[in-house]
Amino acid sequence: MARTPKSFIREILKVTEDPGIISFAGGLPNPALIDVEGIRKAAAHVLCEDGKTALQYSTTEGYLPLRKFIAERYRKRLGLAVSPDEILITNGSQQCLDLIGKVFIDRGDHVAIERPGYLGAIQAFSLYEPIFHPIELLPDGPDPAMLDDVCSQYPVKLFYGIPNSQNPSGITYSERRRQEVASTLVGTRTLFVEDDAYGELQFSGNAPASLKGMLPDQTILTGSFSKILAPGMRLGWVCAPPAIMEQVIIAKQASDLHSNYLSQRIAARYLADEDLDAHIRKIRFVYKKQRDIMLLLMEETFPASVTWTEPVGGMFVWATLPKGCSAMDVFTHALREHVAVLPGTPFYVDGGGDQQIRLNFSNSSEERIITGVERLGRVIRALVP
Amino acid sequence: MARTPKSFIREILKVTEDPGIISFAGGLPNPALIDVEGIRKAAAHVLCEDGKTALQYSTTEGYLPLRKFIAERYRKRLGLAVSPDEILITNGSQQCLDLIGKVFIDRGDHVAIERPGYLGAIQAFSLYEPIFHPIELLPDGPDPAMLDDVCSQYPVKLFYGIPNSQNPSGITYSERRRQEVASTLVGTRTLFVEDDAYGELQFSGNAPASLKGMLPDQTILTGSFSKILAPGMRLGWVCAPPAIMEQVIIAKQASDLHSNYLSQRIAARYLADEDLDAHIRKIRFVYKKQRDIMLLLMEETFPASVTWTEPVGGMFVWATLPKGCSAMDVFTHALREHVAVLPGTPFYVDGGGDQQIRLNFSNSSEERIITGVERLGRVIRALVP
Repeated sequence: MARTPKSFIREILKVTEDPGIISFAGGLPNPALIDVEGIRKAAAHVLCEDGKTALQYSTTEGYLPLRKFIAERYRKRLGLAVSPDEILITNGSQQCLDLIGKVFIDRGDHVAIERPGYLGAIQAFSLYEPIFHPIELLPDGPDPAMLDDVCSQYPVKLFYGIPNSQNPSGITYSERRRQEVASTLVGTRTLFVEDDAYGELQFSGNAPASLKGMLPDQTILTGSFSKILAPGMRLGWVCAPPAIMEQVIIAKQASDLHSNYLSQRIAARYLADEDLDAHIRKIRFVYKKQRDIMLLLMEETFPASVTWTEPVGGMFVWATLPKGCSAMDVFTHALREHVAVLPGTPFYVDGGGDQQIRLNFSNSSEERIITGVERLGRVIRALVP
Repeated sequence: MARTPKSFIREILKVTEDPGIISFAGGLPNPALIDVEGIRKAAAHVLCEDGKTALQYSTTEGYLPLRKFIAERYRKRLGLAVSPDEILITNGSQQCLDLIGKVFIDRGDHVAIERPGYLGAIQAFSLYEPIFHPIELLPDGPDPAMLDDVCSQYPVKLFYGIPNSQNPSGITYSERRRQEVASTLVGTRTLFVEDDAYGELQFSGNAPASLKGMLPDQTILTGSFSKILAPGMRLGWVCAPPAIMEQVIIAKQASDLHSNYLSQRIAARYLADEDLDAHIRKIRFVYKKQRDIMLLLMEETFPASVTWTEPVGGMFVWATLPKGCSAMDVFTHALREHVAVLPGTPFYVDGGGDQQIRLNFSNSSEERIITGVERLGRVIRALVP
């Protein structure tokens, strides 16, 4: 426990509770894009028609029709042949990371992770005390030489990555980088943990090929309804080959018996009654507009010495400040202007991130993005040497 | 992972899915006692009035009004002075055990547990690879000499117990045994984990004094809405002193960010609108009747050489078979008669339980209890040497 990084996410969520702050710091979906009415109807149906069952204990794996929906969507969307038995419903996809840590990581085990890496994964895995090997992210995916190097020097158990619109960098792996990861890992004892929280949020509507398709027996795929349905229902899933799934089920049962069954039933009903594709198209349309406005305003108001990624999906832009301008100073000064950003430090397991900030564009209206980025531009201009 | 006992609970839940089986094996509440209509109304209110918030991400600690309700109920019911800040909402109380394991147990740490001990705790803690020290349960609580002995010989980090209507034994600690536990542990570095899943289900309506009141700084108290509201909502809580709570929050966040917020909001609304005390009185009344019928039929149909506990609350009767009559044989033969019982073996960390079976009386109607126990009596009579 002592080695687990203290919670930035938690502190951020607290900051975002103050409506006076324009927050680019968190990772919340836009509440205007939660289909409350559809979920309300689904909840009413489930509780009217089968309340006694929906409120009782259930199985560890999760509600079968929901797992079937996920498997079928993988088939249609990504061409993956996945059985519902290879899917287990979790309390949001954060729990996938904890279960994977439980099953695979003993103290001192070697785990490769993108650099910068997702904070939630660093926190979840850290509890199991691995040795992290950060793999530098190039503009189009992980540095193949570095991954090769680490995997040939150490018995790496897991390589954890987010190929689509990575958190925090916003980077999406190119087809070539995906092939490189697959060819480095294939036939080794290293598993790829493919976190696909943002796969449905690619603004072009086309999801790139999944690593799961390239490395079926060595990939654990995780997904989430938080970004496409509602985070408050805490529904994610892990998709793993049968031998691994058997261990994940045991870990899940020891952790909390099973995920919230009422929410599983509501989600399954919602997905049966409503048009998820139409809903996701709407989310993509809005987020793309919000990204466009954020990037445009950054272009207009940030000094030329600041650079940033141009995400093709997801929720985040990752900006790099010039030397001599510290992310913590930007954070502190921006907060005085009632704008919150996230400094890059917690995304690095080996130090670094002093010049990086993460900007979330999904959770703010266009007006607040305009006001917030203008203020941020002023703050940074004053701080750049 | 390899040392974690395979899932009996999971297999049991599967058996109970077959409506043709009279199951005394599981630990499910009676579905007739879930207030579906009240929960449906609460869900409708929450989703109509504040859906966007209830479906968004929330804080790791849990919904404050729900934590306030729990703290206030502890004050009124048990005279405990507990602040809402000392309470964190979990995914059922099973998750409390996982979080406690995460925070406190490193491989090789010493953990004392009742003998027989709760299977869910054995499973949750086993993942963190402690050395278990079973403390024999006398008819009115843990053997004080054995607890003294273990605690003086080893640096015991935790003693885990269920003082009210223990699972699996049905035993409730007497006032004297509670005092003994407190006086053995007070001032030592051993924490008492007081699992109070059944405290509200004492048939007399009077809850005995909580260990938390006797050992406030050394007790971690866990509770659950599964037995008094609905298990499918997966709502439990852990109540711990501030210094411990800080670590529990970090572990909870790394595990799954926060518990299902929609269910927390529905539960809080239900508890504000409905009369929980009246609902619990109803549950006690029905379970007491079901227990009475089960004990009466056991008296009538079981051979005199079988003995059993007479629980004053909770959900379970614990029966001991005579030498030469194995619980596994009873299990196998009973299943052929479409009756399921739970053999005692998985409740022992050091072997044992070959002569014990656990019988659940909460989840079967009176008719099914009569039929089931009669069949079971026939099976046991045929097997007793």
